[in-house]
Amino acid sequence: MNIKVNGKRTWDELEQLSTFSDTPAPSVTRIIYTENDLKARNYFKGLAREAGLEVREDAIGNIFARLNGDDKSLPAIGTGSHCDAIPHAGKYDGTVGVFGGLEALRSLKEGGFKPRRPLEVVFFTSEEPTRFGIGCIGSRLMAGAITVDHIHTLKDKDGLSVDQARAAAGYSGDLSSAILPPKYYEYFVELHIEQGPVLEREKIEIGAVTAIAAPASFRIHFTGQAGHAGSVLMPQRKDALVPAAILIAELESLAKNSDSPDSVGTVGVVKVHPGAINSIPGKVTVEFDIRDIKLSTRDGIVHEIHRRARQLAEERSLQVEIEMINSDPPAISHETILQAIEESATLQGYSKMRLVSRAYHDSLFMARIAPMAMIFVPSKNGYSHRPDEYTSPEEIERGVQILAMTMSKLSHA
Amino acid sequence: MNIKVNGKRTWDELEQLSTFSDTPAPSVTRIIYTENDLKARNYFKGLAREAGLEVREDAIGNIFARLNGDDKSLPAIGTGSHCDAIPHAGKYDGTVGVFGGLEALRSLKEGGFKPRRPLEVVFFTSEEPTRFGIGCIGSRLMAGAITVDHIHTLKDKDGLSVDQARAAAGYSGDLSSAILPPKYYEYFVELHIEQGPVLEREKIEIGAVTAIAAPASFRIHFTGQAGHAGSVLMPQRKDALVPAAILIAELESLAKNSDSPDSVGTVGVVKVHPGAINSIPGKVTVEFDIRDIKLSTRDGIVHEIHRRARQLAEERSLQVEIEMINSDPPAISHETILQAIEESATLQGYSKMRLVSRAYHDSLFMARIAPMAMIFVPSKNGYSHRPDEYTSPEEIERGVQILAMTMSKLSHA
Repeated sequence: MNIKVNGKRTWDELEQLSTFSDTPAPSVTRIIYTENDLKARNYFKGLAREAGLEVREDAIGNIFARLNGDDKSLPAIGTGSHCDAIPHAGKYDGTVGVFGGLEALRSLKEGGFKPRRPLEVVFFTSEEPTRFGIGCIGSRLMAGAITVDHIHTLKDKDGLSVDQARAAAGYSGDLSSAILPPKYYEYFVELHIEQGPVLEREKIEIGAVTAIAAPASFRIHFTGQAGHAGSVLMPQRKDALVPAAILIAELESLAKNSDSPDSVGTVGVVKVHPGAINSIPGKVTVEFDIRDIKLSTRDGIVHEIHRRARQLAEERSLQVEIEMINSDPPAISHETILQAIEESATLQGYSKMRLVSRAYHDSLFMARIAPMAMIFVPSKNGYSHRPDEYTSPEEIERGVQILAMTMSKLSHA
Repeated sequence: MNIKVNGKRTWDELEQLSTFSDTPAPSVTRIIYTENDLKARNYFKGLAREAGLEVREDAIGNIFARLNGDDKSLPAIGTGSHCDAIPHAGKYDGTVGVFGGLEALRSLKEGGFKPRRPLEVVFFTSEEPTRFGIGCIGSRLMAGAITVDHIHTLKDKDGLSVDQARAAAGYSGDLSSAILPPKYYEYFVELHIEQGPVLEREKIEIGAVTAIAAPASFRIHFTGQAGHAGSVLMPQRKDALVPAAILIAELESLAKNSDSPDSVGTVGVVKVHPGAINSIPGKVTVEFDIRDIKLSTRDGIVHEIHRRARQLAEERSLQVEIEMINSDPPAISHETILQAIEESATLQGYSKMRLVSRAYHDSLFMARIAPMAMIFVPSKNGYSHRPDEYTSPEEIERGVQILAMTMSKLSHA
């Protein structure tokens, strides 16, 4: 059969989706379980039902829309991504994989395609760590990569637990019921914008992702002594911010000068207490995100930052606490899926290349329970997590086209 | 006459006052024009009226409570301080000078003291810069040290102007009406906790403040490029936080290694945008507070930080904007008042010493329109701007006693 997706439809849906935001356009802010997140969920479920897909939701709010195949009992071919957006983000991160996945199934169904294995698109809960401090809560839980007890320890900035927040959003039931049974997916393939500059620079239309880099993230809390900025002389100070600032500068050097060209180190959150211009910081929390394809290099940087944090605290008579948020191993893509992606691109006449992903994705956890790969489409200037994140309608359509062809191929593989 | 103040009454009033707080005890948070600030104002006005003092308020909310003397037309002897408290502060900063000032006038009146010149205690509006980013708004305006136009440019974090905020708190009228006429005060003397360790270390009961250090404060805004913490490699980054971190570390070195033992430099506020663990900071604002008794040293540090900010921005292809908040000259105390303080301490048998203040006070601006000095009482461990800020009832009573004696003496001077 001739598969042809409708990129215009996906583009219009992404535009509509972007209006469900806590901040004004062009920025998008959509935090898990908030009103705008629920609007996005309802929008997705409505479209999936209209398309004749079978929709279900689990206890934590992962949404599944399924196109059944010849044999409902067979493991499915999964796709999907997330719709939550960090503060002041853009329109395409995650959403392209959710609404593109929907479009792939919808156009296959409309085209009369009969899958052998079921096809399923997932709207994952909370890929972004914004609300609960840890990313990919939905996919981790599905894969059994986080315990239910661990989820119960998580709180948002207002002290609400995941249980309280999901109940307010209408999700109930035992969280352990969301863990997928063994052999639920035969293969999993996620469509996503690259969030980096490689495809644009190389002028390539389709990326086949061979590995997802291993992210490690942690918080460092320094506790010193608050005091009046005018009255306490420098030798008497126990300023909690200065050692944090030293670490931020050192992280940049470590990442730049590591033995791997892929090392990245970021501090994106600094919390200063009490936070007044005329008050010496008494407590400071800094959040670190360190990634590399090479696990040993990444862990080397993590250990060096931890060592220096303890050393600075000792030199300055401060207290320090290091709180690991996550430290996940990298995921390697499956050759069968990579080849299906590449063959589809060849059939369509799209340029293609293999590349690695340094960004976190739900597929990192799907890789623990199924063979996995990802399809990347270009991001303008490599931008992501910002309002001017951009992938053109044509680029998105090509990605959805390759996703549909890959899923149809894997359905019969 | 024998002057004897009632320290127990002041202590009890300070305890009651501390309950008007946005944060739970022992911390005190009282932001200008909020409900708890209005409660504090009503409490003060009620007590002042009960004591038979004449109460008036000006357009920006400075409250004046006056004990008239033999000749109402003479310039007054002023005292007073502030009751606003930065987030998570303590009970005594500022408040001791307001309620101690009230007690001085009350006990003089109760004791039958007849002043020649009127005595007046002022509850100043917004000594702390918490809400509008600039400190001493009330005393600056009274002294004509800030223009009404400048006040109109100020906004709080929610975008409210001073006019909107004061109207909501019930203060109206042309701000220029709050500027004091020439020769309003004959002398001004403020009682305050030291907020530093000197009196405690030297075991001295009363400090006569010879000068108030010159504070300079400013914001530096760096604008780089936000982006995904995983995807953008180090050489492509324009992280707005790293140069800010470098400056924070350098400020410490500059203040420690200056040619003056009194140099202090503090960064108490860091704002990171978008502020997510997996997002490279695209915009960062850092607030600097630099003080010294020696103006040339202070300005040298300010200029060096500005130079480095521009240099770092250029090296990293970032944009930088430097926004001065204030840069006030130091104030020198008046010998007549210092001697009145010392003579009063001698009469009481209290130990005394002269010292300088590195903290900002409303008296810095009162010094522009009248001869000024300050009385300091010890702070436990030198702490201030924190919940465990502490000055004992006896120490406060001694300060109020010296204030009452000094004011009575100046009233007839």
